[in-house]
Amino acid sequence: MQLSDGHVDPEFGGVLDLFESFLAEDPLYSAQVSVYLQGRKVVDLVGGPDFNPGDITGTYSCSKGVAACVVALLVQDGILDLEQRMAHYWPEFAVHGKGGLTVAQALSHQAGLLGIEGGFRLDEFTTEAAAEKLAAAEPLWLPGTTFGYHALTIGILMEELCRRTAGISLQELYDSRLRVPLDIDFFLGLPEDQEPRYRNVLYDVDDSLPWEDPLSLDGLNSNSGVSSIMELPNHRIIRANGMSSAGGVGSAGGLARLYAAAITGVDGGAAFLTEATISAMTQERVWGLDRSSGQDNAFAVGFMKAHPSRNFGSYRAFGHEGANAALGFADPSYGIGFGYVPRRQEDGRTPGRAHRLAHAVRQAAVASSNSAEAAVRS
Amino acid sequence: MQLSDGHVDPEFGGVLDLFESFLAEDPLYSAQVSVYLQGRKVVDLVGGPDFNPGDITGTYSCSKGVAACVVALLVQDGILDLEQRMAHYWPEFAVHGKGGLTVAQALSHQAGLLGIEGGFRLDEFTTEAAAEKLAAAEPLWLPGTTFGYHALTIGILMEELCRRTAGISLQELYDSRLRVPLDIDFFLGLPEDQEPRYRNVLYDVDDSLPWEDPLSLDGLNSNSGVSSIMELPNHRIIRANGMSSAGGVGSAGGLARLYAAAITGVDGGAAFLTEATISAMTQERVWGLDRSSGQDNAFAVGFMKAHPSRNFGSYRAFGHEGANAALGFADPSYGIGFGYVPRRQEDGRTPGRAHRLAHAVRQAAVASSNSAEAAVRS
Amino acid sequence: MQLSDGHVDPEFGGVLDLFESFLAEDPLYSAQVSVYLQGRKVVDLVGGPDFNPGDITGTYSCSKGVAACVVALLVQDGILDLEQRMAHYWPEFAVHGKGGLTVAQALSHQAGLLGIEGGFRLDEFTTEAAAEKLAAAEPLWLPGTTFGYHALTIGILMEELCRRTAGISLQELYDSRLRVPLDIDFFLGLPEDQEPRYRNVLYDVDDSLPWEDPLSLDGLNSNSGVSSIMELPNHRIIRANGMSSAGGVGSAGGLARLYAAAITGVDGGAAFLTEATISAMTQERVWGLDRSSGQDNAFAVGFMKAHPSRNFGSYRAFGHEGANAALGFADPSYGIGFGYVPRRQEDGRTPGRAHRLAHAVRQAAVASSNSAEAAVRS
Repeated sequence: MQLSDGHVDPEFGGVLDLFESFLAEDPLYSAQVSVYLQGRKVVDLVGGPDFNPGDITGTYSCSKGVAACVVALLVQDGILDLEQRMAHYWPEFAVHGKGGLTVAQALSHQAGLLGIEGGFRLDEFTTEAAAEKLAAAEPLWLPGTTFGYHALTIGILMEELCRRTAGISLQELYDSRLRVPLDIDFFLGLPEDQEPRYRNVLYDVDDSLPWEDPLSLDGLNSNSGVSSIMELPNHRIIRANGMSSAGGVGSAGGLARLYAAAITGVDGGAAFLTEATISAMTQERVWGLDRSSGQDNAFAVGFMKAHPSRNFGSYRAFGHEGANAALGFADPSYGIGFGYVPRRQEDGRTPGRAHRLAHAVRQAAVASSNSAEAAVRS
Repeated sequence: MQLSDGHVDPEFGGVLDLFESFLAEDPLYSAQVSVYLQGRKVVDLVGGPDFNPGDITGTYSCSKGVAACVVALLVQDGILDLEQRMAHYWPEFAVHGKGGLTVAQALSHQAGLLGIEGGFRLDEFTTEAAAEKLAAAEPLWLPGTTFGYHALTIGILMEELCRRTAGISLQELYDSRLRVPLDIDFFLGLPEDQEPRYRNVLYDVDDSLPWEDPLSLDGLNSNSGVSSIMELPNHRIIRANGMSSAGGVGSAGGLARLYAAAITGVDGGAAFLTEATISAMTQERVWGLDRSSGQDNAFAVGFMKAHPSRNFGSYRAFGHEGANAALGFADPSYGIGFGYVPRRQEDGRTPGRAHRLAHAVRQAAVASSNSAEAAVRS
Repeated sequence: MQLSDGHVDPEFGGVLDLFESFLAEDPLYSAQVSVYLQGRKVVDLVGGPDFNPGDITGTYSCSKGVAACVVALLVQDGILDLEQRMAHYWPEFAVHGKGGLTVAQALSHQAGLLGIEGGFRLDEFTTEAAAEKLAAAEPLWLPGTTFGYHALTIGILMEELCRRTAGISLQELYDSRLRVPLDIDFFLGLPEDQEPRYRNVLYDVDDSLPWEDPLSLDGLNSNSGVSSIMELPNHRIIRANGMSSAGGVGSAGGLARLYAAAITGVDGGAAFLTEATISAMTQERVWGLDRSSGQDNAFAVGFMKAHPSRNFGSYRAFGHEGANAALGFADPSYGIGFGYVPRRQEDGRTPGRAHRLAHAVRQAAVASSNSAEAAVRS
């Protein structure tokens, strides 16, 4: 019985088995998983009734990891210094005690700018007007004392830093430096001609939830003029503008290829990030109870790091997951680029499907490496 | 069926319904809830067999929020600087590595002075002698590295700062500046003639608890010569002295009126705190696992802040809850002053009754504001 | 029915009762518990089918507390300054942003050096080569931002500091200054002639655990060429070299005697640590969610501190537990030295057996002290 379509290298048979076990145990389950090892595609699978090859869908905060790859280019180009103060690049930021906050602090969710009263309109997230409002805001905690996930606003910060340093939008820079030249099937700003490929994210609405105070921390964090942030990528305006925090759409293959290109290169090309850039961008900056969710979280600059409840990779792994449990990451310890995209929202905490697949991938990579060494020796 | 007595504005019918549902589902449940909106009393309810109109009872750590309002006056008067070192006002404090600790740090539970060996006598908490013992103590952790709820001792710190800066007791300042002129039915020091109104807090004793080491952190934190801190307000000496940490007694109406007076004013008067004072006093200073309880907590100077497990208000809300689940807070985002006082101890963590009522209040406030705007427009 | 062998002072009958209740409820349970009060042995019990008097076994991270007693001697001798930078004593340490890290930070699990790629061999842990590898490593988080339990590597740090300051190995210093002169039945390096006394630690292997990524934080933390760190003390090479992090073996009596000797002295001798040394070494430095385990933890320099989930002593208590739930600590508030060693691995979190026994010990110590005072008065 062939449950999934696509390609798997023989050494990654365990990943195929696991993926097919997911498909077998839930007839509605539909997902894509894709893996590069040392720049070579070794897994590229799609399965389930709601996904066909070539489909793309929303990935929510996986977008943040993609945008952080663009920020990494600014750092590598020498036009953005992570240890510099935000206000150095963005003088309006230096109000209400935020003058000393560094770029690295702000981009590791320490700014205390989860949202603003009144929220942002769907067409506003990628604008300078949104950045202006955020810069003027009073931080929700004394800067430097804690961190909390900036679900929608971290994208505004990354985008403004890009405008202030590179002079163009983060989305334009992504297209010109990464997506087009590297042929990445992941979009921050989905072109009209790609729209027919888009499949709405499926999710269940929890009607039991009471009214949410838009001025609670949770409310500020998700205040975007929609009844649930799950709606976001299903709005054309969000896909079209490709907001860095949650507007990216694409395939598992696109995520895996981007992360592989970052650390090993693909198709024989060089990695687009140097070791020094990877070190600076991906060293962990914060860990502990997240002030926004109340759950444990770990962040580097822009990227999520693996930790006990998000156990997706080695100590060097960096990436980001999305609200639907989509996941994209690079693992430099193994030379892995990984993408996972489900059609229907699922639980992304360990041991979620994405983390189990990522685990099987690393196990196979180690076995493959051991047998390659044995072959060389014999 | 009328289950409760009192007043509810029509827009707050949802709050009445919720309160009556609590009364209906538990025949022993007795409580008071009171709300001001923009300085006007909109809810004032009492219900259940163990409470009559005019009754007052213990509120435990709600007292800390009331005392913090007095500290806010010291800040507003310019005689206490939150960023100044404690030892500036209180030189004896500068021992055992505590010399650099600021007022804001100490009053946000960062001092590491949960208690002292031997504990304090019931008649000692509000005295200079208690302050002297605390100043001489070695902190339980390296100053600046963490925070933990100072259940009984934060009152000693607030009171000594008041004596050192204003020259009179915190209780006297509260009476002369707030309780008497604003007619607040909440007492830090219950006058003899109000005693007939006092109703003992009801609570169940957990006999299954083993002996508690008085020198464990828990033991130090509650070491007060009583078998349970639940006893405290039921002792006349505690009510009479009105210790800032746990000795305040009053009604839900008193708490709501005080917090309304702080941010909007009542009866047409001005708010007694300025926006600048509110900002300085209520910005969050610490968040995370509390070293004392091991649970999550969030504090500003003196006040509790809302967070996922204590989800009582907007990002600007500040107040304090008590060990019996009493709750008093102000929410400047909505112009709300809120008080809740149960007769019998209950669980105060989200979604406890107080938090559900506070949620219904904000929902009604938003709806009321929306319909008022609609009326203006039409 | 006599279930246990050994000695109990009459005042500690409650401890005997509790220990015998453990033996009665589990016929396979075998353990040792030993207590000194003010330098006098008051409890010394062994029970169960798998332990005879004179047996010794592995204690895992109890070793860290023993090694920290040696570090305390370096501090007391004035040759190691806890607030000095690691690199002052160990220049090679000052790479990858670790130049500013202090001794106290490194020895309270803040260095971010949980392990290295490839791990350490069993015969490598106590060597300079291991220290060299660790000093060269990039920290897993930005130094100063968090802490995480260094299960195997903190011993390497303590041992290298000993070599760099005292010029001899930590194990040699332990033998010459503590074990031999004080007749402590606990070994960092078990002599061949003591081998017949050693009983393998018993533990259940969890076959349901999936492959562990050796480059995950968990994997790095336990990477030692064994399939489970539970194996470690059952290897002769580990016992022989006595690695400071997990290679110590001995009896409950040895642990209790060492900690008693540290704070009160034994057999009429003076305490080997001064009050000043105890203060410096045992003040808590970190508390919160441990980056390695994801659970709450509290550490001083080298030692564990009691906290809600590890509730073994008073605010002044310091010690360490092991992976098998062995526990050794001193409690200066009560003049207690305590040791507990089970033969079979058990759960050490509160309310584990060791913590319940430690609780009964303190309760008895208070009662004994009260009756002694009463006798003096009458």
